[in-house]
Amino acid sequence: MLFFTQCFGAVLDLIHLRFQHYKAKRVFSAAGQLVCVVNPTHSLKVLGDQSEKGQGWEAEKDRCHATHAYTHPSSHHLHHSHEAVHDPQLIPCTCPLFSCQWEGHLEVVVSHLQQTHRINILQGAEIVFLATDMHLPAPTDWIIMHSCLGHQFLLVLRKQEKYEGHLQFFATMMLVGTPTQADNFTYRLELNRNQRRLKWEATPRSVLECVDSVISDGDCLVLNTSLAQLFSDNGSLAIGIAITSSQHHTAESDM
Amino acid sequence: MLFFTQCFGAVLDLIHLRFQHYKAKRVFSAAGQLVCVVNPTHSLKVLGDQSEKGQGWEAEKDRCHATHAYTHPSSHHLHHSHEAVHDPQLIPCTCPLFSCQWEGHLEVVVSHLQQTHRINILQGAEIVFLATDMHLPAPTDWIIMHSCLGHQFLLVLRKQEKYEGHLQFFATMMLVGTPTQADNFTYRLELNRNQRRLKWEATPRSVLECVDSVISDGDCLVLNTSLAQLFSDNGSLAIGIAITSSQHHTAESDM
Repeated sequence: MLFFTQCFGAVLDLIHLRFQHYKAKRVFSAAGQLVCVVNPTHSLKVLGDQSEKGQGWEAEKDRCHATHAYTHPSSHHLHHSHEAVHDPQLIPCTCPLFSCQWEGHLEVVVSHLQQTHRINILQGAEIVFLATDMHLPAPTDWIIMHSCLGHQFLLVLRKQEKYEGHLQFFATMMLVGTPTQADNFTYRLELNRNQRRLKWEATPRSVLECVDSVISDGDCLVLNTSLAQLFSDNGSLAIGIAITSSQHHTAESDM
Repeated sequence: MLFFTQCFGAVLDLIHLRFQHYKAKRVFSAAGQLVCVVNPTHSLKVLGDQSEKGQGWEAEKDRCHATHAYTHPSSHHLHHSHEAVHDPQLIPCTCPLFSCQWEGHLEVVVSHLQQTHRINILQGAEIVFLATDMHLPAPTDWIIMHSCLGHQFLLVLRKQEKYEGHLQFFATMMLVGTPTQADNFTYRLELNRNQRRLKWEATPRSVLECVDSVISDGDCLVLNTSLAQLFSDNGSLAIGIAITSSQHHTAESDM
């Protein structure tokens, strides 16, 4: 009798696991570390054909340049003359995703990402981002948002054919905040498999800058397909993420 | 009198520094760490025109495939059937540099590199590789050899246009030894500048494998030009190098 009860329990566990597999986001704890399974987002499909061979990329870049007040790092310190300086939450902001035409204020971009793009917010400064279905054709995005150190951060992994016949993966971290606030943090991305380890550490960029500009500039973690395969396990790529507060900017704190 | 002696000493020092600057290799110690200034090698010029747009690359790859017994990682464990297994030093070996047609035995490849390509051997497991003149057109190689842990290692940094209009830098570490010997070590390359840090850790490859295959497979540290510029200072790129002995292979030791 006990044997049958155990079998039934095992079958229930299998059904539960299969159900979890088809959920858009899956979070579990492995060896004390938060692992977030991230399926590709399909927001790029709108610009699908257009974006091939970089045409959509350029179009999107133009859109960013036209609408963002904070597109370039060189404009980081121009915000003092901006009309919304007294409340950064009211700064005009577009959706950081590739094909979305949404425009609003910084304070509502998180709810837009949650509601329109179904991006969940995870808690914790150190997580493992497990991107599934790495074989899917470019362009494809894998996105998570996580909340730590009093802010929301957006990790974007993109598969893109920036040069004809040369697929690459780009990973960057964006702060839902101003460039001045972003300067207060450091993020680290780490890949570790097959006796190879790759670490990238940088200051996050602001969502007020354009994620497409950051990626097209290549100022992020860049992987070619053969390296991505070496770091992948069964079509999934695990990226360890850690965010820390930079010490040297604490005097400035939030604007 | 003392003042004039000191002035004369200072002038002598300046002349000496200027002489050192024009030497092919320059080594000095900064903050306790060995810094090696590496000028580009000109060994690629022979295949200059041919190698543009990857033609020379393919030609060289074919040469490697034709002459090397150890071209692929998958053949690492096939050496037991090799006729020279009792003395790895007698394994046939070609020059690891791009355009050189030299062929000989493993035991004489170091002296070939020193004599024909004027590559110096540095001592120490941790050094800083300072590649100068990063702006030079591709293809260009920056190469040093260093001796530590009882072996000689070759660091190759290459600027190459693998895809038309897309210049990249590739850095890899080769052991002057067999693939089995190479498995006993781990190397780390580190770039650190402009609030960005990039680390690559892997097992060195054997010079019996083809350096061009390693680079064309992209199984090495890969930098696009914009990242290389961010990590460069005044046209020079500093790469921290560390080599350690892998613990899990100590039982096998050298074959």
